[in-house]
Amino acid sequence: MANSPSGDSVADRVLRVLETFTPTRTMQTAAEIGRRAGLPSSTAHRLVGELVEVGLLERDQDRRVRVGMRLWELATRSSRALRLRQAALPAMERVQAQVREHTQLAILEQDEALFLERLSSPDATSNITRIAGRLPLHASSSGLVLLAHAEPELQERVLGSRLARLASGTITEPAVLRRKLAEVRRLGHAVAPGSIEDVATGVAVPVRDRSGTVVAALSVVIERHARLDRPLSALHAAAREIRRTLSQ
Amino acid sequence: MANSPSGDSVADRVLRVLETFTPTRTMQTAAEIGRRAGLPSSTAHRLVGELVEVGLLERDQDRRVRVGMRLWELATRSSRALRLRQAALPAMERVQAQVREHTQLAILEQDEALFLERLSSPDATSNITRIAGRLPLHASSSGLVLLAHAEPELQERVLGSRLARLASGTITEPAVLRRKLAEVRRLGHAVAPGSIEDVATGVAVPVRDRSGTVVAALSVVIERHARLDRPLSALHAAAREIRRTLSQ
Repeated sequence: MANSPSGDSVADRVLRVLETFTPTRTMQTAAEIGRRAGLPSSTAHRLVGELVEVGLLERDQDRRVRVGMRLWELATRSSRALRLRQAALPAMERVQAQVREHTQLAILEQDEALFLERLSSPDATSNITRIAGRLPLHASSSGLVLLAHAEPELQERVLGSRLARLASGTITEPAVLRRKLAEVRRLGHAVAPGSIEDVATGVAVPVRDRSGTVVAALSVVIERHARLDRPLSALHAAAREIRRTLSQ
Repeated sequence: MANSPSGDSVADRVLRVLETFTPTRTMQTAAEIGRRAGLPSSTAHRLVGELVEVGLLERDQDRRVRVGMRLWELATRSSRALRLRQAALPAMERVQAQVREHTQLAILEQDEALFLERLSSPDATSNITRIAGRLPLHASSSGLVLLAHAEPELQERVLGSRLARLASGTITEPAVLRRKLAEVRRLGHAVAPGSIEDVATGVAVPVRDRSGTVVAALSVVIERHARLDRPLSALHAAAREIRRTLSQ
C-alpha cells in the first residue's frame, strides 16, 4: 500500500508520527514532527495535514499540532486497556483507601510493564509511574510479577539482556534475577525495595483471569522501609476481586 | 500522499479502519473491517496487515484483529483527555463517595458530549454513559452545560438541527432548548430529568480552567425524583477543586 521509496509502509509512517508525542512533548509543529519521525519534510507536512483533516491530530491557533481527542476516543473505546481498567478500578480504589499510597495496574507490553491506571494520593510516597507510561520488567515490582509469569522465551530474553541499574536496589545480575523470579512465583507477590527509586519500595501481586492466566500486575509504592503486611493483604484481596469481575 | 484512485487519503483510510471498532465490536477479521470501512478487500487486507505489523492493531490466534495496546498508549500518553482526567479524578472520587451514584467527566467534541471518565457505584441508578462514549448535547445534562457555554455558531447549529427524542423528558423544541440554555448559564448548572432515560435525572456543572473558560462538564446521574441539593453542592465543590488543580 503506497510504500515510500525507502520501503516504509503507510502504517509505519503514521506510527512514527504518533511516537513523536510524549507526556512532556504534547504540542509540536509539523516540521518538528517530521524531524523527530525521520520523515522528509514534504512527507511529514502532507501526512500531518491529512491526520489533522480527519481529526486524529488537532491543530491550534499557533499551527502547533497535538494528539486528537478523536484518536484517544477510537483507541480507547474498544480497547483491552479500558476493559481491564474498568474491571480493576473499584478494587484499586479500595486498595488506595486502605494503604493511602499510589496504586497501579500494569500489563506486559513489548517487553516492558505498561501502566494502564494509577490512582494517586496527595501525601503518598514518591513515584515516577505514569498512566500509559512504561517501566523495565527487571526493575519494577509490577514488571517482576509479569516477567515471573511470562513465557520462558521472554524470561530468557530479559535475562540475556543488559539489566540497567535505575536505583541502589535494582537487580542487575541475571542469576539474582532468576532467583527473584522463582521467589515471586513461590510467594505470590513481588517486593522491589529501592529498585526504581532509592526511597521507595514497590509491592505487586498478579491479577489472573478466570482461567488462571496472569493478565496484569496490581501494585502499590510505599516508603522503602514501610511494613508489608497491610499492602500485601489489600493487594491480594483486590486481585481476587478483579478476577471475580473478569470471570463474570 | 499516496491517495487512492477514489481520492481518499492515507489518514482517511486509517480513520475508517479504526472507526469500525466499537465497545461492542472489539474483534474483527480483516474482511469485516474492509466491508465496514468501505474499503476494497485488497486495500483492507494490506492496510490491516501493516497496522498489525507496527502494533497499532493486534491479531489473535484466530487471525481476528483488535485495537492494539500500542495505539492506546500513544493516543493516551500525551492527550488532553489524560491531563483533564487526572486533574479531575480526586474530586470525582469525592463526589462519588458523597453522592454514591455514577460520576462523569465530559468535554465538547464534534458537536457531542464525549465522556473522558466515569466512576460507577455498584448500586447506582441506571446509566448508559461509557468512557470514550458520546451523548447528544441537547439531551444529556453534561451536553446542556457544554452547549450553554459553547460558541454561538455551535448553539445555532444544534438549535437548527433535529433534536432527537431519547426519553420522555428530552427537550425536542428549539425554543424550549434556547430557554434551557439561558437557564443553565443563569443557575450555573443543568438538570435533565428523564432526558436520556425515563428513570434517571442528570445533573451537571461546568468545569472551568484558570481563565474561566468552560473546558468540561462534571455530572452525576441520580434517580429521576431524587433530591438535588446534595449532588449540586458536591458537584460545585468538585468543579472548584478541579479548577484549582488546572490552575497550578
